Amino acid sequence: MYGASRVYKKVEVIGVAKESIEAAIQAAVAKAHKTLEKISWFEVQDVRGHVGEDGAITEYQVVLKVSFELK
Amino acid sequence: MYGASRVYKKVEVIGVAKESIEAAIQAAVAKAHKTLEKISWFEVQDVRGHVGEDGAITEYQVVLKVSFELK
Amino acid sequence: MYGASRVYKKVEVIGVAKESIEAAIQAAVAKAHKTLEKISWFEVQDVRGHVGEDGAITEYQVVLKVSFELK
Amino acid sequence: MYGASRVYKKVEVIGVAKESIEAAIQAAVAKAHKTLEKISWFEVQDVRGHVGEDGAITEYQVVLKVSFELK
Amino acid sequence: MYGASRVYKKVEVIGVAKESIEAAIQAAVAKAHKTLEKISWFEVQDVRGHVGEDGAITEYQVVLKVSFELK
Amino acid sequence: MYGASRVYKKVEVIGVAKESIEAAIQAAVAKAHKTLEKISWFEVQDVRGHVGEDGAITEYQVVLKVSFELK
Amino acid sequence: MYGASRVYKKVEVIGVAKESIEAAIQAAVAKAHKTLEKISWFEVQDVRGHVGEDGAITEYQVVLKVSFELK
Amino acid sequence: MYGASRVYKKVEVIGVAKESIEAAIQAAVAKAHKTLEKISWFEVQDVRGHVGEDGAITEYQVVLKVSFELK
Amino acid sequence: MYGASRVYKKVEVIGVAKESIEAAIQAAVAKAHKTLEKISWFEVQDVRGHVGEDGAITEYQVVLKVSFELK
Amino acid sequence: MYGASRVYKKVEVIGVAKESIEAAIQAAVAKAHKTLEKISWFEVQDVRGHVGEDGAITEYQVVLKVSFELK
Amino acid sequence: MYGASRVYKKVEVIGVAKESIEAAIQAAVAKAHKTLEKISWFEVQDVRGHVGEDGAITEYQVVLKVSFELK
Amino acid sequence: MYGASRVYKKVEVIGVAKESIEAAIQAAVAKAHKTLEKISWFEVQDVRGHVGEDGAITEYQVVLKVSFELK
Repeated sequence: MYGASRVYKKVEVIGVAKESIEAAIQAAVAKAHKTLEKISWFEVQDVRGHVGEDGAITEYQVVLKVSFELK
Repeated sequence: MYGASRVYKKVEVIGVAKESIEAAIQAAVAKAHKTLEKISWFEVQDVRGHVGEDGAITEYQVVLKVSFELK
Repeated sequence: MYGASRVYKKVEVIGVAKESIEAAIQAAVAKAHKTLEKISWFEVQDVRGHVGEDGAITEYQVVLKVSFELK
Repeated sequence: MYGASRVYKKVEVIGVAKESIEAAIQAAVAKAHKTLEKISWFEVQDVRGHVGEDGAITEYQVVLKVSFELK
Repeated sequence: MYGASRVYKKVEVIGVAKESIEAAIQAAVAKAHKTLEKISWFEVQDVRGHVGEDGAITEYQVVLKVSFELK
Repeated sequence: MYGASRVYKKVEVIGVAKESIEAAIQAAVAKAHKTLEKISWFEVQDVRGHVGEDGAITEYQVVLKVSFELK
Repeated sequence: MYGASRVYKKVEVIGVAKESIEAAIQAAVAKAHKTLEKISWFEVQDVRGHVGEDGAITEYQVVLKVSFELK
Repeated sequence: MYGASRVYKKVEVIGVAKESIEAAIQAAVAKAHKTLEKISWFEVQDVRGHVGEDGAITEYQVVLKVSFELK
Repeated sequence: MYGASRVYKKVEVIGVAKESIEAAIQAAVAKAHKTLEKISWFEVQDVRGHVGEDGAITEYQVVLKVSFELK
Repeated sequence: MYGASRVYKKVEVIGVAKESIEAAIQAAVAKAHKTLEKISWFEVQDVRGHVGEDGAITEYQVVLKVSFELK
Repeated sequence: MYGASRVYKKVEVIGVAKESIEAAIQAAVAKAHKTLEKISWFEVQDVRGHVGEDGAITEYQVVLKVSFELK
Repeated sequence: MYGASRVYKKVEVIGVAKESIEAAIQAAVAKAHKTLEKISWFEVQDVRGHVGEDGAITEYQVVLKVSFELK
């Protein structure tokens, strides 16, 4: 397959989840996979999160780029 | 609302306006809001501009990322 | 034309070609031009590539941003 | 005065204002000046903002570093 | 609440924990929440760690910025 | 005009003005336009400023690159 | 021990694992520890991953630098 | 020659050419060599380009730094 | 000690000294050690300086981050 | 193959060639392939070059990272 | 003086010296001060150097930006 | 010599010394020169250090890349 001319598109998304960084990534990938295109790979750009009144992390927000082939 | 799983998309746009940096940002946000999705927030990436024959700034070009929820 | 309010969108794509970096850029620009919008300019972000079993480069992968006016 | 040994501290703050980027900077500088120390200079790190339901910018959020002498 | 003038402060901390990256983040956030101010959000800057004699990770060290409102 | 071989030079300048970021940019562009060459465009690199004894911003210092054609 | 002259080497590796980011880091550290030298610490550079046909993450790929003393 | 005190200057230029990235670099180097000083080496900063109505690349614009000794 | 949960704080300071870069670092570390907390390590961010009327360097200004444990 | 635990190593090399950027990349990849390990992919970091007495480019120097599996 | 409109220019130079980093900075500043303009301040960008046959450092090469007022 | 095809390798090392930044660089270069290959040049990446109980710098840690020809 390598060597064949082809084109991919990268889209930036933010996944949010309560449990873990991995869960936030999976949320974003799954959503993009359903609403945009069949995602091939992802790259994490930033990890952020919200903190509740009691000092506990209430959610992880992961900024990532997802890529898919433009057919 | 924090803690609920959700996904946002970030789109990169360039707003151009004659008057000020703020006007260029507002132009880009308003356009994206109308043609793409209901924008929630923006982040400035770069500020550039064009200069006329007489050395006066003829326009500000502001590169920014705008974000909206993927529903 | 400078001074008129207008808005552009930037999209990130990856072009792949066997011959050269320029061919990979042209592949990505042509595809985006056809499937997305009439592209006005591009900016190279990254140059990568795949290497075959014999140590020869089998393809160039060029990550670039392409821009077009939002009308 | 140059050449005399002295030490400064840099603190990162975010100013928020409705009117303009400059107003957000001034808000952050004034607050830091009153609650922390007598600020000597500032450096802008990031410009962001919030967008309302109607696509209008509701506030500018400017991340900046403010510096003051440690006596 | 958006549109009201207000100021936040960002502080850089490093959380250390044995179990996971998330545990190191939570350690830093909890500590800052107790000794500094009521933290609103965090941003991960760097993830590092220590390795034991046997090649097992003995701890994760996560550098992050935590933010709180300056009242 | 596109497609014709030509060369531009970029020069880094700092504009200082009391009123606003835009005024500082215009000051630098005007000066460069008069003492160096006929500037075609500018790119903002950094925004900084000085703060007075009373916590008011006394001036904006904008670092920018200005470009002109080398004939 | 601090103050004694010594030299460390940093090597860049990529760990791949199915379960989590931490598992990918541990895979890379363990391998480097066995085939290269006794690793003292690591620094994460990038987190990426592959996505399967069904939109599920099939593996995490973590780029990291591992360091060891040059004796 | 190494060890002798000497000073170099770096100048930022943009070369434009229709054929290739290398042609754009050569255009900028040749021009700087003639109008500024005898260039010793160059460093590419950015590769951009313009796209025509038909989606073909009409020119490559390469931003580079060229260096020469200050005598 | 590795493996025990603990938290560090990083503070950004600028040391100024006439003699050398090392003297400017030591000035900042010593001051922070006395007025803030017992510093454990430092990381240089930027090296700048002032130049006198005669072209001689009048002082080195070193921006650095100093770290200490939050107990 | 995706999902199987494995580890890659990245090595930084500089390829030098007279003809083009692609020739310099191929030179570095071929050499690394022969003296180090069977390279799988490369990533360009920097493009530089030397200029002759007459202002012609005498060589391209391309800094790149090459990657191979650690078995 | 703060508050008065004025413009500075930044020029990038490389100083080379055998003894130390500070000597290389001073060499570049002194040369720029004599051949260009009366320098006000400098900012170090990069520190590099050459190594002799015997593994001893033969010179330090410091890339810096020097700034002066455009009158 | 310029124009001849050749390949260099870059290795990242950390030199530690008590006296100065230059001493830490020389320590790393000398070690790499002896245990790896005949180093041709170096590039400083980061300068860090450790601070003792009394606030005095106990050592400088300089991260640098050293380069040598791959023959």
